[in-house]
Amino acid sequence: MTSLRGRGGVGRGPESRRGGEMAAEQDPEALAAARPLLTDLYQATMALGYWRARRAREQAEFELFFRGCPFGGAFALAAGLRDCVRFLRAFRLRDADVQFLASVLPPDTEPAFFEHLRGLDCSDVTVRALPEGSLAFPGVPLLQVCGPLLVVQLLETPLLCLVSYASLIATNAARLRLIAGPKKRLLEMGLRRAQGPDGGLTASTYSYLGGFDGSSNVLAGQLRGVPVAGTLAHSFITSFLGTEVPPNPAQEIRKIFRTISAQFQVPWLESVSITVSNNINEEELARLAQEGSEVNVIGIGTNVVTCPRQPSLGCVYKLVSVGGQPRMKLTEDPEKQTLPGSKAAFRLLGADGEAPPTPRGPSQVPRPPALFLAHTGSPLLDVLQLVDEPPPQAGQELRVWPRGAQEACTVRPAHVEPLLRLWVRRGQLCEPLPSLAESRAFAQLSLSRLSPEHKRLEQPAPYRVALSDKLRALVDRLCAGGPS
Amino acid sequence: MTSLRGRGGVGRGPESRRGGEMAAEQDPEALAAARPLLTDLYQATMALGYWRARRAREQAEFELFFRGCPFGGAFALAAGLRDCVRFLRAFRLRDADVQFLASVLPPDTEPAFFEHLRGLDCSDVTVRALPEGSLAFPGVPLLQVCGPLLVVQLLETPLLCLVSYASLIATNAARLRLIAGPKKRLLEMGLRRAQGPDGGLTASTYSYLGGFDGSSNVLAGQLRGVPVAGTLAHSFITSFLGTEVPPNPAQEIRKIFRTISAQFQVPWLESVSITVSNNINEEELARLAQEGSEVNVIGIGTNVVTCPRQPSLGCVYKLVSVGGQPRMKLTEDPEKQTLPGSKAAFRLLGADGEAPPTPRGPSQVPRPPALFLAHTGSPLLDVLQLVDEPPPQAGQELRVWPRGAQEACTVRPAHVEPLLRLWVRRGQLCEPLPSLAESRAFAQLSLSRLSPEHKRLEQPAPYRVALSDKLRALVDRLCAGGPS
Repeated sequence: MTSLRGRGGVGRGPESRRGGEMAAEQDPEALAAARPLLTDLYQATMALGYWRARRAREQAEFELFFRGCPFGGAFALAAGLRDCVRFLRAFRLRDADVQFLASVLPPDTEPAFFEHLRGLDCSDVTVRALPEGSLAFPGVPLLQVCGPLLVVQLLETPLLCLVSYASLIATNAARLRLIAGPKKRLLEMGLRRAQGPDGGLTASTYSYLGGFDGSSNVLAGQLRGVPVAGTLAHSFITSFLGTEVPPNPAQEIRKIFRTISAQFQVPWLESVSITVSNNINEEELARLAQEGSEVNVIGIGTNVVTCPRQPSLGCVYKLVSVGGQPRMKLTEDPEKQTLPGSKAAFRLLGADGEAPPTPRGPSQVPRPPALFLAHTGSPLLDVLQLVDEPPPQAGQELRVWPRGAQEACTVRPAHVEPLLRLWVRRGQLCEPLPSLAESRAFAQLSLSRLSPEHKRLEQPAPYRVALSDKLRALVDRLCAGGPS
Repeated sequence: MTSLRGRGGVGRGPESRRGGEMAAEQDPEALAAARPLLTDLYQATMALGYWRARRAREQAEFELFFRGCPFGGAFALAAGLRDCVRFLRAFRLRDADVQFLASVLPPDTEPAFFEHLRGLDCSDVTVRALPEGSLAFPGVPLLQVCGPLLVVQLLETPLLCLVSYASLIATNAARLRLIAGPKKRLLEMGLRRAQGPDGGLTASTYSYLGGFDGSSNVLAGQLRGVPVAGTLAHSFITSFLGTEVPPNPAQEIRKIFRTISAQFQVPWLESVSITVSNNINEEELARLAQEGSEVNVIGIGTNVVTCPRQPSLGCVYKLVSVGGQPRMKLTEDPEKQTLPGSKAAFRLLGADGEAPPTPRGPSQVPRPPALFLAHTGSPLLDVLQLVDEPPPQAGQELRVWPRGAQEACTVRPAHVEPLLRLWVRRGQLCEPLPSLAESRAFAQLSLSRLSPEHKRLEQPAPYRVALSDKLRALVDRLCAGGPS
């Protein structure tokens, strides 16, 4: 596995002063958000069911993923892992929590069940995940969570809550950055429009990760190291003037600055930074980003923070194996079918600066040409396979089954990247999490490699996710009701 | 002023065990959310500006209101006051907060400014507000906040954050309740889709206030006394079965229950409660609420929690007076113009069970008939006037200036209700806040009195908000640039 720090190449942010680990203990805000009762009641009901069936400690694995990219695009950015790790490390039911659960569960619930809850923590939980800032695609796990069935079931709701919105915001911010281009400064200013106080904190954190330059939210600076910036309010002006003069368009303001600068010989005034903000959405931002715009800084509130075009990512958390046996959800809607078994995920890439790889050798199925249209060095497709299969090899032809397609295709990648990294092994952090600034740089690097056909914001070409032969065969067996 | 408790007529919820007051001190979650740095940087910059101009302690008043009702409707429910009171009572900058501000404000900032910040609290802040669950209309203050200019400026962002989303959620829930009718049980199940952990907590709390019966969110039960309920997850079934059988439509399920009930003589099975959930929005809910539907409980997630039709209410917080002088924002957009001066607000109502009041006596201007179409006992319009004017009197004719209209109209209310109650006087809570359950009952009562023409969800008749003669004259003087 490659080092994230090597890729990002930027200095470590304030978080790294704590040695790269989340210092949950020093952060009452995190402790509050990390409450284990931030979950759906049915998780506790199911926990009781598992406990009564003597299955509480059975080894289970869940995958957290989304089914469709947000905002009509073809990519998302993975985010929220740092909050998940903070949550897992602090996860423990206090006496008051257990007492509250006792008050809402059936009155005949066995006291021994509550004793079991009192002893719970995440010391047997293992988490693999996409590094924050990674490109994420439908069906590829953002998180794989393994551990005792009862505990990993209880984690469902909080992990979904922490990952879904973070990834949605990061993706929204990345889209806005793509529109604005690299030079405009983008500030998130949406705290007042956010869905609750830490809706605001989450938005400030992950819009920075997704490509914004900073936020007006001071708490995001204090707790997360997000650069903070701001302007001033109408009320500041009216408090001095009584009434407020309507603002001029930015172009006019620059002319005024130039005139004053020349007339009174104050050269710095000519190039003073102009900030605009007022209901800026993707369309308005595209206008402001045009050549010749005199605007330097663009503040975006509601449209980055609440994601009005699609205010939820709709991540799901699905059981893929229990007691070593693969599990699968079959539904009438093939979109909602899950992929069974413990899996590995790889990203297959084209060559850097070379011609696209020429397929050679025998091939049983026709190759869809779209796979080879990608720019060299760009991701071609993601492959999901069973965890015990050998990884795909660079330069070697591979037969895979793209999801949603009826036929297999072959691909010969110039590079192969494993996607899921081991972050938490039996409750212990395996390596320091990258700083927020590093994840931000990684997100920009990831996006820069994505082919324009997948990166464009309207009607992009879908990026393919494919299954290995063995995984495909397992799906077929389980669909047919056969043995796993 | 009337007693809220007298109106609600329901038992006090768990909050009342603490004597009706918010017990911020016992609630780390509230303490975390209440951090004073949960604000925009520009508030601190402006605070510095006011301090340097020796205006920090000047008496100022802000109003918090919205400009348009959400979701294409003609009403909103006021909510979030309990969180604001909790925030104000805990408001104090810790040393670490001041140090962080020092790191982001200009390096030449005077140490005495930071000393001033260290001593800040809300002990000189006074808050009037609509009781939670009140009907709220555009331009009518949800909150009036008076106090030293520097402090009340700093409160802008957190108060907006706390009121906007709470009111949006309560309104969304009220719409869904109107569609579902009084008999279906509505459960909020959206924590996993919420915008951040306390986005979820806020949604659970205020969807209950707006008319839901409960939530799946256990933490909302523990911290806010919201009734909690739930079902079970797909993974529970797949963990036992390997794969999951696709669910039947509810109608089919009831038939199966009836058959089994008759065949095996288990009478209770026939009427067992059926719960459905899966992307239920207003249209789908209308279908489920129809006569003959066998569904008893409806779980709604994404569509109540994220408010996809309009994910932010867009409240604003505007300076209306400073040092005793009225202040006003003039803009090219008349919608964004503010109303100057310290104000009182009244709701004028028709007669209970009587014919609509007949206008009599001389009247200079034509009366728009719409004002008298409302059902008897229903709110006719809200009047904003300067705080020192005598209140409107029941049975007496009054000339007012509806916003957006060019001409005045007269109205003779059968009842007059003052809208804004004094909750916090110089930092002290004046009366216990109603419990959440009481506010919920009050919301349903308020809605029941609203005329159907304003209550209908699509293309309703706008509810009028009008200015008194004196307030209208002040606006005209300030617009003309004259003395206030």
